[in-house]
Amino acid sequence: MASKEMYALGSQASVIRDLFAYGQQQAAVVGKENVFDFSIGNPTVPAPACVKEAIEDIMETRESAAIHGYTAAAGDTAVRQGLADFMNQTYDAQVRADNFYMTCGAAASLTISLKALVESPDDEIILIAPFFPEYTVFVQNANAKSVVLPPDTEHFQISLDALEKAITPHTRAVIINSPNNPSGVVYSADTYEKLAALLTRKSQEIGHAIYIISDEPYREIIYDGLPILYVPKFYKDTIICYSYSKSLSLPGERIGYVLVPDCAADAKEVYTAVCGAGRSMGFVCAPHLFQDVVLKCLGQTSDMNIYDENRKLLYNGLKEMGYDCVYPSGAFYLFVKSPEADAKAFSDKAKKLNLLIVPADSFGCPGYVRVSYCVDPDMIKRSFAAFKKLMEQYQ
Amino acid sequence: MASKEMYALGSQASVIRDLFAYGQQQAAVVGKENVFDFSIGNPTVPAPACVKEAIEDIMETRESAAIHGYTAAAGDTAVRQGLADFMNQTYDAQVRADNFYMTCGAAASLTISLKALVESPDDEIILIAPFFPEYTVFVQNANAKSVVLPPDTEHFQISLDALEKAITPHTRAVIINSPNNPSGVVYSADTYEKLAALLTRKSQEIGHAIYIISDEPYREIIYDGLPILYVPKFYKDTIICYSYSKSLSLPGERIGYVLVPDCAADAKEVYTAVCGAGRSMGFVCAPHLFQDVVLKCLGQTSDMNIYDENRKLLYNGLKEMGYDCVYPSGAFYLFVKSPEADAKAFSDKAKKLNLLIVPADSFGCPGYVRVSYCVDPDMIKRSFAAFKKLMEQYQ
Ligand SMILES: Cc1ncc(COP(=O)(O)O)c(C=O)c1O
Ligand SMILES: Cc1ncc(COP(=O)(O)O)c(C=O)c1O
Repeated sequence: MASKEMYALGSQASVIRDLFAYGQQQAAVVGKENVFDFSIGNPTVPAPACVKEAIEDIMETRESAAIHGYTAAAGDTAVRQGLADFMNQTYDAQVRADNFYMTCGAAASLTISLKALVESPDDEIILIAPFFPEYTVFVQNANAKSVVLPPDTEHFQISLDALEKAITPHTRAVIINSPNNPSGVVYSADTYEKLAALLTRKSQEIGHAIYIISDEPYREIIYDGLPILYVPKFYKDTIICYSYSKSLSLPGERIGYVLVPDCAADAKEVYTAVCGAGRSMGFVCAPHLFQDVVLKCLGQTSDMNIYDENRKLLYNGLKEMGYDCVYPSGAFYLFVKSPEADAKAFSDKAKKLNLLIVPADSFGCPGYVRVSYCVDPDMIKRSFAAFKKLMEQYQ
Repeated sequence: MASKEMYALGSQASVIRDLFAYGQQQAAVVGKENVFDFSIGNPTVPAPACVKEAIEDIMETRESAAIHGYTAAAGDTAVRQGLADFMNQTYDAQVRADNFYMTCGAAASLTISLKALVESPDDEIILIAPFFPEYTVFVQNANAKSVVLPPDTEHFQISLDALEKAITPHTRAVIINSPNNPSGVVYSADTYEKLAALLTRKSQEIGHAIYIISDEPYREIIYDGLPILYVPKFYKDTIICYSYSKSLSLPGERIGYVLVPDCAADAKEVYTAVCGAGRSMGFVCAPHLFQDVVLKCLGQTSDMNIYDENRKLLYNGLKEMGYDCVYPSGAFYLFVKSPEADAKAFSDKAKKLNLLIVPADSFGCPGYVRVSYCVDPDMIKRSFAAFKKLMEQYQ
């Protein structure tokens, strides 16, 4: 008497949540300071001061209906104009308020974009391993098929040969995610150029545009002075799914957007379908107060130095112990090759040392583990003895 | 290159929004004070003081991650426990924290509940005219069929004979909405008793439970001291979709819940499917700050006296002019019989007098108009001359 498909989605155990729950239990047994939980991607750096200031200012100076009333379905116009101005100044994006549709975060941006694009149950969405596991759920919600590309385990960019082979006349879109969860890798300009060339050629070949859905919740979490690249500059048929969950440490407030730039094929139709998809799933509008908060915090982020220091500490520490780590350029994840083929077995051995790291099988990348470093730096230091003990089992 | 179905939903003109937009334009031409806009159901009474106090208190006393971090997908446990305690004290509901799934408002509660219940594209959802027009969109999103019951234009309760005929082996659920948008009517205990008896008998006949989905955004907006009835007390297979949009005047903040009480058939499975449906559409969690705000405002509402005074003013005023009005017991809508068969023509004539009232055709009830009285009382008074002129055209 309930949907079997929804029941399955609701009851599926998540490796990440299970590890997290185990960590909470173990803390009660061995003490909080002896559990090293690297499982979760929940931002630990506080929201920047502008968030609190914005909330206080709005609460003090505006009337209830102007703070808490429904906004237009696409979002408040002044907010969207502010976003457009910011994107134009920062990335020369040439966008208007009407290219933005405000959402309840990146997950909503993705389900809305997919539902807007998918026309037939034969439609295929290409996912590039390693990928955020919820993508397969969101593709299923749009009633399309996920096609998974094997990982480029050399550079964690994109295996273009594999992508070329994976494209069929049913290919509707490719989801990309840079900076990447879980690999921590940032796509290079070279990758975007080659990807664009391939997709342009294949779009012509199959007779319709293949869209890039660019999932960018980690856009600003990028290190070593690497530039932030605006994907539509490389490939015009790009739809951007953005979120303030990570950049402003507001994951619980559910605020982000879909951006359909005018350069994308059938931009007007796609944007209208985005509005329709948001309506159909009952989103109504994005949370009003936080629409105005992000407007007042344009261009600001949480303190990225803290993540950067964690990154260096963890990467250098593990390298020194002999771990094979993917060099982390963005987001707050370190991707580590498992010293044995079975990353689940490796993660289980780590668990015995109260070291909680996520096997990347569910990210489409067996043989690796994800170590989230949005954690207390002291915990990283305390964890090194356990990481050492773990490595000793393989030496 | 976009979903035709989503494109259609995104481009469909809404009568209500069109009227509202026309009102804004006309205000620039004839002056704001000469436009009488009764089109929109956006709460005008401010949120109660507890909302601002709660936000300020939370911002002052908690740390960023505790305010803005992800909550569990079903919502913060303390918040859900608070809701359960409140429902138990107030309605003797006998519910637990784990019966609640926090959502982004009633619209999300509905899309999630429907997706959780629907098993096959043959499944039928019964809508009782007059009904909130988005129901058909939400049923379509769940990939089921809407079956519309004609209105009981005598009492605006439920035509039980018609309902009996409409039930088939494919019937999965009946959506009810009391206090009702657009009729302003509140279902009586007698209606619930008869409805429960009928659904119990028919559920047995067809061999599976027919659920009631009780859409209750106007639960507390009820007049003349009428009691608020807890629907599962009448019929156990009830799922409640609630929202704070109207009761706390927070429509833009997107906060509400789905309640699956233990007494409902297959309650555990349905609740798990609710979690799965929320996940599948990318809701992740309900906005965190406002989860905590509603916890701190339990049992409070915006000042309902203002709506009550508007109600009396408008109902008495229009009755006196000879309008045939449905007696309004709840919500903030007055339902008026059109003096000519074609309510659209009537609404057009009203529009010429800058009187904006919504023909109820899209609510499944031709021949009526909806007059929203969540407006400035002065506007009601100023509008009477126009309502009089309008009536004179029919005398
Ligand atoms: C790659 C990626 N996409 C999307 C999301 C969902 O983000 P949001 O909280 O904005 O819905 C996450 C969250 O961890 C993520 O890592
Ligand atoms: C009957 C009814 N159901 C649901 C809704 C949607 O409410 P929410 O803003 O909580 O999504 C409305 C809004 O007007 C309504 O009138």
